Order: sequence, then C-alpha cells, then structure tokens
Amino acid sequence: MHVVVNAAMSADGKLSTRERTQIVISGEADFDRVDRLRADSDAIVVGVGTVLADDPSLTVTADALRDTRIESDRPANPARVVADSRARTPVDASVLDDAAETYVLVSEAAPVDRRSALADRGATLITAGADRVDLLRAFAALQEAGFRDVMVEGGGELIFSLFDAGLVDELITYVGSTVFGGRDAPTLADGEGFVTGFPSLSLSSVERLDDGVVLSWTVDR
Amino acid sequence: MHVVVNAAMSADGKLSTRERTQIVISGEADFDRVDRLRADSDAIVVGVGTVLADDPSLTVTADALRDTRIESDRPANPARVVADSRARTPVDASVLDDAAETYVLVSEAAPVDRRSALADRGATLITAGADRVDLLRAFAALQEAGFRDVMVEGGGELIFSLFDAGLVDELITYVGSTVFGGRDAPTLADGEGFVTGFPSLSLSSVERLDDGVVLSWTVDR
Ligand SMILES: NC(=O)c1ccc[n+]([C@@H]2O[C@H](COP(=O)([O-])OP(=O)(O)OC[C@H]3O[C@@H](n4cnc5c(N)ncnc54)[C@H](OP(=O)(O)O)[C@@H]3O)[C@@H](O)[C@H]2O)c1
Ligand SMILES: NC(=O)c1ccc[n+]([C@@H]2O[C@H](COP(=O)([O-])OP(=O)(O)OC[C@H]3O[C@@H](n4cnc5c(N)ncnc54)[C@H](OP(=O)(O)O)[C@@H]3O)[C@@H](O)[C@H]2O)c1
Repeated sequence: MHVVVNAAMSADGKLSTRERTQIVISGEADFDRVDRLRADSDAIVVGVGTVLADDPSLTVTADALRDTRIESDRPANPARVVADSRARTPVDASVLDDAAETYVLVSEAAPVDRRSALADRGATLITAGADRVDLLRAFAALQEAGFRDVMVEGGGELIFSLFDAGLVDELITYVGSTVFGGRDAPTLADGEGFVTGFPSLSLSSVERLDDGVVLSWTVDR
Repeated sequence: MHVVVNAAMSADGKLSTRERTQIVISGEADFDRVDRLRADSDAIVVGVGTVLADDPSLTVTADALRDTRIESDRPANPARVVADSRARTPVDASVLDDAAETYVLVSEAAPVDRRSALADRGATLITAGADRVDLLRAFAALQEAGFRDVMVEGGGELIFSLFDAGLVDELITYVGSTVFGGRDAPTLADGEGFVTGFPSLSLSSVERLDDGVVLSWTVDR
C-alpha cells in the first residue's frame, strides 16, 4: 500500500482558522491537481474531525477523470474512509451518500446503535483498537480489502497519528499565500507531537501553483 | 522602516517541538543566508519567549560580514531588541552581552526593579503599552532611533502580533525536511489567530536550500 498525505496549509502551517471553518487556501490549478490525485487513488481517508467540520464528499469532480476510471474497470470514485473511533459520523454526512463506497474505521468503544446506524446507511465498518482506531491494524484491513493507492486528506490529528504509526509514504502540501495564525488553530500535524524520532523527509519536488507553492516530500525509511 | 520576519519551520509549520527546546531545522547554507540577512539589518527583534527558551545572542557569525559593517561605519553587529512586557529578560541573557547594543521593549506593567536591573546591564528601555508591549508605538520609537532595516527572528507569539499590527513587510520561511507535530508546539504564527482580515502575501521567491526550501513572501498592502 502507498499512502500519500495531501493538504493545503497557510504560510504558517495551519489547515484552518481557530474557528475550524473551511477556508479556501489554494486556487483552481491546485483544485485540479487534488482532483487528479483523488482520481488516481483507490481510497480517500479523513478523520471524523474533518467530516464534522467540513462535511466533504471526497469525490472526483471532473467528469473526464471519472470516465477514465470507469473505462479501466474501477468505480467512478475512490472509496471513502473515515477514522472515527466512536462512530460519530452523522448519518446525513456527504461521505455516506451513494457516490462511492464508504468505510468507517471504528474502535471497540463505538456504541452499537451508532454502528448499526452507519451500517444501515451502507457503510462498511472496520473495527480496530480498543478506545481509539488502531491505524496499523485498520490500514492492514484496507490493504486486504484491495486498496493499493491511498490518499489522506486530513485533518491534522489524523495526519500526526499516521506519521506516528509510520504509515505515511509521501507528504504533499500546498502552501498558500496567507497567514491564519492562532495557537489553537489546526495545523498540518497536531496530536501529541514528536520530541524524538522525528520523521525524516526528502524534498522530491517544488512547484509554484496559483498564488502558492506545492511541496512534495517522500518519507525516508 | 522595512520589517522582515525570518524563521525556520518544520514541514508542518512548527518553530519547535511541544517541549520548546531549540531543534536545528535547517543546514549550513541556510545558516549562512540568515547570517547575511542579520548583517544587512540594523536591528534584530525577538520575543522574550525566544530569549527564555533559546538564549540566542543574535549576533553576526562571519568575521567578513562584521568587517564589512565596520568598514561602512556601522556597528559590528546589529542592535538586539526584545519584546518583553514585564522585563523578564534574565540579566545573564546572551542578548545582554556587550557584542551589540540592546533594546528592551517593555510595557508600563514592567516592575521598576526589573527595569533597573536591565538598564544596569546596559540595555535601553522603550516603554509602550499598558499591560503588553504596544508594537506600533514601540516600532515607531525604533524608527526614531534610526533603525531602517529590521529583522524579526521569532517566535510565533511575536510574529502573530506583528502581522496583526500590520507591521510586517516580508516573510521568509525556511521549510525543513521533518515533521514536529503537536497541537501545542509553537507555530510560525500563534497568538489569537485571524478569523477575518487575513494578511495577503505574494510569493516573491522559492529556493531549494540544504534539505529544504526557502519561501519568500511580501505582504500586500
Ligand atoms: N486545508 C486542508 O487541506 C484541510 C484538510 C482536512 C481538514 N482540514 C481542517 O482540519 C480541521 C479538522 O482537523 P482535525 O485535526 O480536528 O480532525 P481530523 O484529523 O480530521 O479528525 C480527528 C479525529 O479523528 C478521529 N480518530 C480516530 N482514530 C484516530 C487516530 N488513531 N488518531 C487520530 N485521530 C483519530 C479522532 O476522533 P475520535 O477519537 O472520535 O475517533 C480525532 O478527533 C477542520 O478545521 C478542517 O477544516 C483542512
Ligand atoms: N525556528 C525558528 O526560527 C525559531 C525562532 C524563534 C523562536 N523559536 C522557538 O519559538 C519558541 C518561542 O516562541 P514563543 O512564541 O513562545 O515566544 P516569542 O514570540 O519569542 O515571545 C513571546 C512573548 O513576547 C512577549 N511580548 C511582548 N509584547 C508582545 C506582543 N505585543 N505580542 C506578542 N508577544 C509579546 C510576550 O511575553 P510578555 O507578555 O511577558 O511580554 C510573549 O509571551 C521557542 O520554542 C523557540 O525555540 C524558533
């Protein structure tokens, strides 16, 4: 499995403001880049924080990209995966619409009624971990389900945990031409934070796009 | 007055880890770049948080750069300026050594004994603001003192306030090849954070350096 983390951040490393509302950081060219990356992926992963804050659909926008997928015997859209220990994803969330398959990664602490509500909406549940989703086990299950190219779209809590678990192969950040500031605003990688054993990256490409720049890093092993 | 903010951050926008200890983010080429930028400046500004965490001396390292300054009738090192509302800078701080002039920006809330301790160590005190340093007034005083090219070296609390006050002309970030993570780690711009009226930047240059990249932005007016 190959895991690419992609996110847009302000010039000071924030995914959003302290109010956690969705703010457009990039422009049309970056939107197209992200759309192509989605179309090249088998699954798109987000944390439940992003579902609750932004209600994204995580589908491919360009008709041509969906058509190409269908022509090569793939579903029109990649599967959507939500890391959601307690199954808090709302039943009317866009990720549960019928545009694509949806997986919800839950922990053993997820209440039975919430699980069955999500299953009733067509989601496939993967249980891994006692209190919080055990990402190593959950991603192993995704691999067994046949997913090869996995794209992670945030947010910062999930991204940190994925780095912590050693699951990230590539990190792509669009750095936008603004400053959000805020010691409580979500950053690209939140969580506890590292104090030793920092992931080591190699810069694979730098591309100016819209008013910002796309930095692509590979994670050293 | 021209104000340049320069700082090194991890790929996820952190100035340091959650433990706030100094971690080397860049390499030798970036160190030289920062040294040249210092040598081109009349004053180097930091917040007292950085003085307490890192005890930097903020002087120019390269002999040749200091010599060039002296030849053009400037002091060997730029002046050092600490934003320090309550005059908490320790009397044995490196910024108070005799390598350069030192200014401490304090508020009216700074205790008299602390003020005189700093004055005894040769620092020039500028009082602006009731409880916290009023940066607009303090920077006007620095301008009157003859400082034209001012470089700000952090940390994130001070940088946010300077953006908030509209005092920043340029932002230069070295983005390093590692991830610190941590929702409580200091970021490039902390403070309260913007929710509207975000500063708008223009990308003036992108340069790969050491294992990372230097992004230079100008602040739109
Ligand atoms: N600019 C961008 O590209 C971008 C992209 C995405 C999001 N965002 C922004 O980011 C913010 C949301 O980010 P966020 O960090 O709060 O949320 P997030 O990372 O999307 O979701 C975090 C949640 O995921 C769940 N989770 C399950 N297992 C986990 C594990 N092992 N490790 C970590 N989390 C796990 C946790 O909730 P449970 O404990 O309940 O499971 C956790 O609170 C929003 O403001 C959104 O707008 C921006
Ligand atoms: N990577 C880098 O390039 C770099 C550079 C610098 C620092 N750092 C790291 O950054 C961390 C320190 O950053 P920090 O954000 O905690 O400290 P900081 O920005 O250096 O200093 C913040 C302090 O400055 C004082 N201050 C006075 N007037 C202010 C105003 N108007 N607005 C904001 N602050 C004002 C405040 O203390 P009072 O209220 O007492 O005045 C405030 O707590 C350390 O971990 C250090 O290693 C990294």
